[in-house]
Amino acid sequence: MLRLHYYPGNASLAPHILLEETGADYELMLVDRANNAHKSAEYLRLNPNGRIPTLVSGDLVIWESAAICLYILERFPGSGLSPEPGSEARGRFLNWMVYLTNTLQPEILVYNYTERHVSDDGAIPTVRGRAAERIANTWSIIENELSSRGPYLMGEEFSAADIYMMMLCRWCRSLENPPGNLPAVARVVETGEARPAVQRALAQEGFEVPFFIPAQAA
Amino acid sequence: MLRLHYYPGNASLAPHILLEETGADYELMLVDRANNAHKSAEYLRLNPNGRIPTLVSGDLVIWESAAICLYILERFPGSGLSPEPGSEARGRFLNWMVYLTNTLQPEILVYNYTERHVSDDGAIPTVRGRAAERIANTWSIIENELSSRGPYLMGEEFSAADIYMMMLCRWCRSLENPPGNLPAVARVVETGEARPAVQRALAQEGFEVPFFIPAQAA
Repeated sequence: MLRLHYYPGNASLAPHILLEETGADYELMLVDRANNAHKSAEYLRLNPNGRIPTLVSGDLVIWESAAICLYILERFPGSGLSPEPGSEARGRFLNWMVYLTNTLQPEILVYNYTERHVSDDGAIPTVRGRAAERIANTWSIIENELSSRGPYLMGEEFSAADIYMMMLCRWCRSLENPPGNLPAVARVVETGEARPAVQRALAQEGFEVPFFIPAQAA
Repeated sequence: MLRLHYYPGNASLAPHILLEETGADYELMLVDRANNAHKSAEYLRLNPNGRIPTLVSGDLVIWESAAICLYILERFPGSGLSPEPGSEARGRFLNWMVYLTNTLQPEILVYNYTERHVSDDGAIPTVRGRAAERIANTWSIIENELSSRGPYLMGEEFSAADIYMMMLCRWCRSLENPPGNLPAVARVVETGEARPAVQRALAQEGFEVPFFIPAQAA
């Protein structure tokens, strides 16, 4: 039995959705962020970064969201949400998964938690402003891909990369120009949000649709 | 035939080493950074981020270093440098690959190219200082893993995650406390640098050993 340590809407959401999509046998463990449970000695023993999520399966502990997604997809194949390892399509899939997690995701953290990246609060506006520019540039590369070779990141097929992208789209909702305004991104979100597994995961985390592009940001 | 667009010592190095390790049929294409070739229209058509590396294989184009590594390992199995997809060990492997690429690597880019992350140069010291702290924290998590459950990131087995780590160790050589000073990290580098495939890739890029921990930084 897999155990996913999560907090609603955090980086645990994409793995949570994939657990629903693949039909894996799992249970959710709420990490009580309000009481700083993600910095408790017990949690830090599992996950030395003190971030959410953590996936535990027997002796195996994984604490990177994108790695958990890839692991779930490999361990429970047949969902149709990722290409076969070793296939050519797999290269494209890995490219987008890595790009989302190592280029877009860290930049969003800088934007949303800028104070962690400076020791002088006076520097927050300049750092935050550059992060917003870089995030916008990344979304424009994604939008361009979706509109020229889409409609999904993998072309004709909706995949786990789109699910990961949807999660990051939500995280960008407070940008001046949120990615939900990009038509090709919005179409992916609309398709993804209609999936029963996505709706089950959202309901379990206490959310209602529209979630990934909140109505006020559209 | 795979074609790797590279520049010596850049993020192309780990994929280059893995091409040598796996015995793949490939050719190297030098991206002339000195003449800004990575920002040329031709290169940007391949890789909209204008970064190095890019791997081309027929119609497939991958431009994230960690994704290229995972793809090479899946496509040319048998090197013993990564666990079988779907295996439990694979979860641990993916965790380290993702952690290196989405936590350590972006922070090193902030440290080494801080001016890209601010619009006001006065903010460079504070941003750079915090990046150095965050990088040190990440290396201490890695050192702790290697010394408690190592000697390698995968335990008893040297893997592609160690190769990726070695590349990032080199990139951190100008830190006040470079990771080459960490004993467990240094042991991994020593083992890795003794591998014939690693030495071939370094020689092809015009480097001599010791490379990953330069003598002056040790």
